Amino acid sequence: MRRQKKFYAWGYADEDLSAEEIKYWEQGIAKHYGVSSFDVTPPPKPDEITLRAPRVSVPSALQEIVRTDHLTRLEHSYGKAGFDACRMFMRSVPNPPDAIAFPKDEDDVVRVLAWCDQIGAKAIPYGGGSSVVKGIEPQAEFEKVVTISMREMDKVLEVDPVSSAARIQGGIYGPAIEDHLRDTPFTMRHYMQAYRCSTLGGWIATRSGGHYATLWTHIDDFVESTRMVTPTGTLETRRLPGSGAGPSPDRMVLGSEGILGIITEAWVRLRRKPTFRIATSVRFPNFYAGAEAVRGITQANLFPANCRLLEAREALPDIPWSNEEAVLMLTFESADHPLDAWMARALEICRDAGGTPDASALDDENSHRSGAAGAWRNKFIRAPHYSEHAAARGILSATFETSMTWDRFRDFHGKISAITRDTLKRVTGRDGTVTCRFTHVYPDGPCLYFTFGGLGDKRNQLEQLMEVLTVCTAATVAHGGTTTHHHAVGRFHRPFYDKQRPELFAQALRGAKRVLDPKGLMNPGVLIDP
Amino acid sequence: MRRQKKFYAWGYADEDLSAEEIKYWEQGIAKHYGVSSFDVTPPPKPDEITLRAPRVSVPSALQEIVRTDHLTRLEHSYGKAGFDACRMFMRSVPNPPDAIAFPKDEDDVVRVLAWCDQIGAKAIPYGGGSSVVKGIEPQAEFEKVVTISMREMDKVLEVDPVSSAARIQGGIYGPAIEDHLRDTPFTMRHYMQAYRCSTLGGWIATRSGGHYATLWTHIDDFVESTRMVTPTGTLETRRLPGSGAGPSPDRMVLGSEGILGIITEAWVRLRRKPTFRIATSVRFPNFYAGAEAVRGITQANLFPANCRLLEAREALPDIPWSNEEAVLMLTFESADHPLDAWMARALEICRDAGGTPDASALDDENSHRSGAAGAWRNKFIRAPHYSEHAAARGILSATFETSMTWDRFRDFHGKISAITRDTLKRVTGRDGTVTCRFTHVYPDGPCLYFTFGGLGDKRNQLEQLMEVLTVCTAATVAHGGTTTHHHAVGRFHRPFYDKQRPELFAQALRGAKRVLDPKGLMNPGVLIDP
Repeated sequence: MRRQKKFYAWGYADEDLSAEEIKYWEQGIAKHYGVSSFDVTPPPKPDEITLRAPRVSVPSALQEIVRTDHLTRLEHSYGKAGFDACRMFMRSVPNPPDAIAFPKDEDDVVRVLAWCDQIGAKAIPYGGGSSVVKGIEPQAEFEKVVTISMREMDKVLEVDPVSSAARIQGGIYGPAIEDHLRDTPFTMRHYMQAYRCSTLGGWIATRSGGHYATLWTHIDDFVESTRMVTPTGTLETRRLPGSGAGPSPDRMVLGSEGILGIITEAWVRLRRKPTFRIATSVRFPNFYAGAEAVRGITQANLFPANCRLLEAREALPDIPWSNEEAVLMLTFESADHPLDAWMARALEICRDAGGTPDASALDDENSHRSGAAGAWRNKFIRAPHYSEHAAARGILSATFETSMTWDRFRDFHGKISAITRDTLKRVTGRDGTVTCRFTHVYPDGPCLYFTFGGLGDKRNQLEQLMEVLTVCTAATVAHGGTTTHHHAVGRFHRPFYDKQRPELFAQALRGAKRVLDPKGLMNPGVLIDP
Repeated sequence: MRRQKKFYAWGYADEDLSAEEIKYWEQGIAKHYGVSSFDVTPPPKPDEITLRAPRVSVPSALQEIVRTDHLTRLEHSYGKAGFDACRMFMRSVPNPPDAIAFPKDEDDVVRVLAWCDQIGAKAIPYGGGSSVVKGIEPQAEFEKVVTISMREMDKVLEVDPVSSAARIQGGIYGPAIEDHLRDTPFTMRHYMQAYRCSTLGGWIATRSGGHYATLWTHIDDFVESTRMVTPTGTLETRRLPGSGAGPSPDRMVLGSEGILGIITEAWVRLRRKPTFRIATSVRFPNFYAGAEAVRGITQANLFPANCRLLEAREALPDIPWSNEEAVLMLTFESADHPLDAWMARALEICRDAGGTPDASALDDENSHRSGAAGAWRNKFIRAPHYSEHAAARGILSATFETSMTWDRFRDFHGKISAITRDTLKRVTGRDGTVTCRFTHVYPDGPCLYFTFGGLGDKRNQLEQLMEVLTVCTAATVAHGGTTTHHHAVGRFHRPFYDKQRPELFAQALRGAKRVLDPKGLMNPGVLIDP
């Protein structure tokens, strides 16, 4: 029996934060903004939301794999961003898909695409539906929409223990991969916040970022080969450890966000499960001191698995908002050798930059689950659940992420932080909160991940949220960053992406798309216009 | 004063192997094949080769940067493969370029492309001309050809010491990059056999492999952003340490082999010059034992800079041909920390696989220049010079390279080695020599680099050479490998590449090319047909 997901917010229907967690969080926010209580909108029930009737009729040959019922359509209407929860709490779903297909194999995918072609429907590939950028959202101008959920194609087909790789279907959820590998020495270990409800195909289509803060930051680094069904036919790349034969075909599939086809399978690189782990946290007087340490560690090629720099007020409970400290979560992992030499050198670099390691955690096998690291880890995993409770209360809450080279990082960080603060104040009429962390880091610069919060007005909280998010994301691109480091472009980032990517590349991509998807069925509006 | 390159073979006109080197090598081959002497064709002089008259007339506005003289055209007619030297020794150059442009800046590149468009000439981008795959060779069917040499655009424009990166023009030769960085803590360290006479733009266009045997194997891993002039306009990607915004535009440029445009600039990642280095060699009873050690080292994520496994008879002087031993060149480098822990673990893995480390070399600062490593290093650097002497004597000599996952490596290596041996015997009527080495290695498989030699018949040595090389390369693809790991596709690898790459990818690439190069000016016949 498949576990039912929550149609209006993150996670499964039978789970939520505990009453205690909500209370603690709500009280903190009330205190911060000096309000006594919140007007809490109850979560929507399916029948409180009216959907227009499906504009397609499902041919009998496809009835077994295509659904048009109310709840299924509702579930597939939005992703899982704050603005998605917000619209669900407004009971506003003007553009649901007309039908949702659940292909069981590649032939089904081909049949469904042929049907879309035949009836002139747009096709939206759908993995776990965890998009935060309107990547799977039907648009008003689509005359007919069929969403193609890959969740039935969820098998690990083959494990190659010699090369340390596996052939896996695109529709598999993160935990199912690790379940399959449980009795092997291997792990894929591509964890991210959306891990529980996102798929391998989705990761590849959106160039997701994962567990590793260095070296293998994106799914790109895991992919050995891909298989994609396009409206024109099936494209399968050769399984190779390395190649220099022309532009990499896999790199056209990676980040294609459903506009070229549907990723049905991939060979991915596995790691052996780490048996050596050494972790600690390091406190710095401020974020820039921490950043210098991170720059040193990345440029020293030490390759920690975790190297996430956080503002202490974001990371640790009960830290006053005025606190300027930063804390670095530092973990080395290996399935092969002890990492004392690695950690010793990393801590030397941290000390040189003014950091103070948390000595108590260093030798603890479970150090990543205790202390500062543990507190933050728990917060990280639970975070997506807060979105709906914020939406219910008119609390603005969202994140945006970008990257920048080290030479311009400090100025960039200052500017984007200030713009976010100013915009929150202008839009909500009072001070909000802004924090930044590094999620992934490179020898030439960090990925900056911003989180903001503000007290909105329930009467126009969606407009307020979109205004802040739009201004901030636009600013990252205007100041030289990327519109997204690992959240994909989708429809929300399109205007900013259009400014960032070379115009001739967009034209070239359009040239490629016209060949693979000549009628423009596939996820229109994402990345490029037809 | 620019140093004159040898028009008919590798290197500069004023250099060659010493008489002693040639004698030693010639005697070894004579002994191996049981012949007493060779009929040595003298190297061609420019006036011994007749070129058809240029089919273009250079407009006065371009005369300063376009040349049509005999020697310049001769120099730009072929790359530097064995079959190129062979044809030069045959005094056979039926398809020289009609003119060679030497743009001094991007405006010149634009002007030259506009001229090509106007007169209907094909444009061949040219870096150092070290192609071994007919990548820069005009074809008989081209009505007019203008080769565009980038050698005047050879500056390091900017060094960013904070992010450890530099902005460099496409036409710069390898040594000029390091010269520019001499007084900085940085190095690009992208060395390969063709390093002295190849360019950054060429490396990017062909996805060259370099110094590092693991981790940063291809130029792909160095590129932060690129700038390319196409017939439709200029495409510049944003400088970013990491991004997930759609398919990577740089990955369309990397490996484009001149069919989309000319790479004028790139931001590349630099390394700090290594100050810690630890190197040794390890002997194994046979190649497969060595391969097991290499697999272990790569899967342990130790990331040696050098991890090249060689058959001893290829690597070491005076080893009998029947010797089955293999030798692993193992080097760790860092600008940051001592590498004892890294080397200790790697040697443990080697010993477990049956290897015997050369203890004497381990602690020697210059260990990579002495012992087995030193002997092979010298041979490696001098190797390209032998090509012309082989051509002069009817000796067949060439290399081909591919990659394969570890699960199929042993069977693959056995098959390809046997096919090469059998083909040499069939074509030349006697046993030749075949060796294999790993040049780059990955957790999921090695790059296999084969070298073969045979005693040809001077009357049809070109046909013999092409026959062996074609059969062997075709076999690598037929048995699941790549047609090239780091030598590019060009025109020689095209038939095998066509079998390897997904047909729909070729069509998509053609769709992209039609946008950037609508009239098909750019390097036709490479990678795809118009």
